Amino acid sequence: MKPTLPRGTRDFTPAQLLKRDFIFDTIKKVFKKFAFAPIETPTMENLSVLTGKYGEEGDQLIFKILNSGDFLLEPKNKNIELQQVDSKKLLPFISEKALRYDLTVPFARFVVMNRNDISFPFKRYQIQPVWRADRPQKGRYREFYQCDADVVGTDSLLCEAEIVLMIHEVMQHLGIKNIEIKINNRKILSGITEIAGSFGKETDICTAIDKIDKIGIEGVTKELFERGISQTSINILLPIINFKGNNSEILYFLKSALQNSTIGTKGIDEVEQVLHFIDQFGTQIDALKIDISLARGLSYYTGAIFEVKALDVQMGSISGGGRYDNLTGLFGLDGVSGVGISFGVERIYDIMEELNLFPQTDNSYSKILLTHFDVASMNYGMKIVANLRSSNIAAEIYPQVTKIKKQFEYANAKSIPFVAVVGETEMQNNTVALKNMLSGEQNIVDKDNILEYLQLK
Amino acid sequence: MKPTLPRGTRDFTPAQLLKRDFIFDTIKKVFKKFAFAPIETPTMENLSVLTGKYGEEGDQLIFKILNSGDFLLEPKNKNIELQQVDSKKLLPFISEKALRYDLTVPFARFVVMNRNDISFPFKRYQIQPVWRADRPQKGRYREFYQCDADVVGTDSLLCEAEIVLMIHEVMQHLGIKNIEIKINNRKILSGITEIAGSFGKETDICTAIDKIDKIGIEGVTKELFERGISQTSINILLPIINFKGNNSEILYFLKSALQNSTIGTKGIDEVEQVLHFIDQFGTQIDALKIDISLARGLSYYTGAIFEVKALDVQMGSISGGGRYDNLTGLFGLDGVSGVGISFGVERIYDIMEELNLFPQTDNSYSKILLTHFDVASMNYGMKIVANLRSSNIAAEIYPQVTKIKKQFEYANAKSIPFVAVVGETEMQNNTVALKNMLSGEQNIVDKDNILEYLQLK
Repeated sequence: MKPTLPRGTRDFTPAQLLKRDFIFDTIKKVFKKFAFAPIETPTMENLSVLTGKYGEEGDQLIFKILNSGDFLLEPKNKNIELQQVDSKKLLPFISEKALRYDLTVPFARFVVMNRNDISFPFKRYQIQPVWRADRPQKGRYREFYQCDADVVGTDSLLCEAEIVLMIHEVMQHLGIKNIEIKINNRKILSGITEIAGSFGKETDICTAIDKIDKIGIEGVTKELFERGISQTSINILLPIINFKGNNSEILYFLKSALQNSTIGTKGIDEVEQVLHFIDQFGTQIDALKIDISLARGLSYYTGAIFEVKALDVQMGSISGGGRYDNLTGLFGLDGVSGVGISFGVERIYDIMEELNLFPQTDNSYSKILLTHFDVASMNYGMKIVANLRSSNIAAEIYPQVTKIKKQFEYANAKSIPFVAVVGETEMQNNTVALKNMLSGEQNIVDKDNILEYLQLK
Repeated sequence: MKPTLPRGTRDFTPAQLLKRDFIFDTIKKVFKKFAFAPIETPTMENLSVLTGKYGEEGDQLIFKILNSGDFLLEPKNKNIELQQVDSKKLLPFISEKALRYDLTVPFARFVVMNRNDISFPFKRYQIQPVWRADRPQKGRYREFYQCDADVVGTDSLLCEAEIVLMIHEVMQHLGIKNIEIKINNRKILSGITEIAGSFGKETDICTAIDKIDKIGIEGVTKELFERGISQTSINILLPIINFKGNNSEILYFLKSALQNSTIGTKGIDEVEQVLHFIDQFGTQIDALKIDISLARGLSYYTGAIFEVKALDVQMGSISGGGRYDNLTGLFGLDGVSGVGISFGVERIYDIMEELNLFPQTDNSYSKILLTHFDVASMNYGMKIVANLRSSNIAAEIYPQVTKIKKQFEYANAKSIPFVAVVGETEMQNNTVALKNMLSGEQNIVDKDNILEYLQLK
C-alpha cells in the first residue's frame, strides 16, 4: 500500500521548520517583550465548550472525535434507534470531544477554570495548531497554526495601543514592511446603524460589509437589501462606510456624521484614544489606517477591530483581532473584557517565501561531517566528533565504512558546510583534511584546532 | 455552565511551560549536537496508516475522528444498514482519520512518502504530542509529548552507540544523574528461545518476560506456561534470562550459553560492538547495563533494545527505544533499517519535580512593572516602558489608573522582580523610584539609567 496524508494536512521537513521557527521565534520574542506569558491548552476540548461559539457554519467545520471503546454500547445509548437517526442526531451519542477550532474559545475556558489562580489583567500568548474541516485550497489547510496574544481583565485602551505596537514590531522584524494595519471600532459600526435607523442589525450589516473587498459596493448594497435593510437605511449607511481619507479626515467626518449617536461617538473617542496612546509610546506607525468598512466576521467583537494586510502580495489578511467584552461570559464569568490579536503563520510564510524575506543563514542542521576510509580512520574520527560535540558543534561521522565519494554525496545532499577527511597520513600527523564545501577550499588542520578553524570560517 | 477539560488532558500555565521548555530545550540541544534535524507530521493520520501497527489493544486506544459533514449521507454509506451495525462495523463508514498514536509510525510513513528527497542515512528528531484513549491515572495522560530521535537507512551499530551517548548526555544536562541505561538485543532473546527449543515464540516469551519487574520470576513462569511454552523450555530459558552480573560477566556467560545459536551469537557480537564504539567515542558510561530480561513490548525491534530508569524515584522507564529492521516495509519500502530512542517528557517532568531538579532561575515572564498615580504619570511611564522594550527587556505598564496598592499586588502575584513608581517628583526630576521586589531595596534612578540598573541587579 502507498501511504497518504489526510487532505489539507502537511508534513514539515527540516528546511521548512527552520523557516517556520523563524516566524514563531520572531512573534514570541515580541510577545515576551510586551510581558505576555505563554499557556497551552489541550488539542481536544469537550464539544459542549466549542459548540455554538463559531456560528452554525463554524460548528460544522469542527472536527469531532469518536468516543473511545465500543461507543454504541454505552449505557446512555441503549435506546438509540439507529435506523431512524441522521448524522446530526447520531452525533451526541457517539462523540463528546472535538479538535480545537481556534485559540480564543479555549483561552476563555482556561480563564474561567483558572480564575482563582490568575492575576488580572492577564496577558497570555498561545502558539498552537487548530483544525477546521474546511475545503482545502491553496494556502488553506485543515491543520494550521495560530499565534495569539490577548489581555483580559481590563478595558484600558492602552492594551489596544500595545497590540498595534506589537503588530508593527512583528512585521518589522519579519521584514514585511509594506503593510496596512487597519483599525475600526464596533461601536462606530453600531453608531452608523443607529443613524441609519437599522440599529440591532449590526450582524447582518457587518456580514455584508465584510465582503466589500470581494463583491464591491454594489454587491454589498444588494446583499444588504436581501438581508432586510431598507433602501433608505442603505442610502444613509453606505456613504458613511465608504468614506475615504486619512485618519484625521475620517475622524473629523465621523464626528459630524455620528454626532447624534452616543455609541458611535464613544467608538470615535476610543479610536482617538488608541491613537493618542500610540503617540505616547513614542512610536509613529504610518501603516495604521482607520477603515470604517472593517467589520471582520466574528460577531463577538465589541470595541476595537484590527486587521493587517501585506501590500506587496495578493493575499487575505495576515493578522486580525479586536476587543470582546464578554467572551468568558459564555462560561459563566461575566465582566472580563479582553482584547487580542492573532497572527496567521501559514500566510505569513507564503508571503515571506514570495518576497524572499527569509534570512539567508546557514540552513544546515549539521555543521561538519567526518569521513573516513576504513575501520581505523573511522575509530580515529569518532573521538574528533565527540570533541567537537563537547564544544556544542553539530557534528557527525558517516556511520559506516564506504566509498569516500558516497560520503561526500551525503554531505552535499544535506548541505553540510564542512567535511573532514581522515586517512592514514592524517592519522599519523594528528590532523584532518578540512574542506569548505561552499568555497572548495581545503586545508590540513591539526585535529585539536578544528573548532577554531570552523569558528573563523 | 461550568466548563471542564476532557479526561486525561491538561492545560499548561506559564510556570509549567517554563519547566517543560527546559526539558524540551535540553533534549533538542543534544539531538542537534548529534546532527539530528527536526520534522513534524500532522496530528491526523489516515486510519489505514495507523491501524494494525500497534497490536489489537493499541488499535482500540487510537482516537478516531468522525468524517466531517453529513457523514451518514456519503454515497458509499447509502447501503449501510444502521439497525444491524455494531461500533466496529460502523467505524469504517463514519471515520477515516485518527489522532497520531506515536511518532514512530508517522515517521516511517514520512520516510516512505519522501524517500526521493531524503538523503540516507536520515537522522531526524521529532517532538510532538500523541494521543491514546488509555484509562487516565497518575502520570498517565491521554495527550502527552514524545521526544524521538531516529536514524534510518543504515544498520551501523555506531548509531546505537550514539543513542546511548545522547541518553547519557540528556540525563546529565537535566540533572537526573542516578540512572540505569539498560541495553539488550532482540537477537539474544531469539538465541535464547532457539536454545530452549521454542524458536518462533519470541513474541510470547518477550511479552511474558516484559512483566518480570511486575509479576516476578514465578509470575513469568506461569505466564510462559499458559502461553504454551513447555516446562523443559522454561527450565532452559529462565536461568539464562535471569542471569545477573556486570557487563563482562554477562557477555562471558552468554557466549557460552548461546554458542550453539547463530542468531544469539550475532546478538552478543552486536552488543559488544556497541560497547566498543562507545569506548571509541571516549565516553565512559557507568550507567549502561546489559539486561538479558529487557524485552519491551513492541514487537518491531529486531536488534538493540534500550530502556532508561531513574533510580532515585519509583517510576517506570523514562526513555526507551531500539533497532527495527523493517518499519518502512509496512508501507512498501523494504531494506531500510533504523534505530531510535524516545524520551517520555511527562515522567521526566514528574521526576524533576520530585527531586527538585529544575533550575531556580527567574521564573517571571515580566521583568519590570511601571506603576503610576494618574494619567500624567501613566503617560510619562509609557515612554520609559517603550525604551526598555527597545532594549529587549520584558517590560509592562499597569494599563489603567488605579490605586498603587493594587498595582503592587499585581506585581507580587506575577513575581515581577522590579517595580518602578512614577509620581510628580519623579516626573519633575526625570527619574523613577525603582524597587527590587525580592530584596525590598529601593532607589531613585535616572529614567535613562534603568537599563543599566536592572542589568547590575
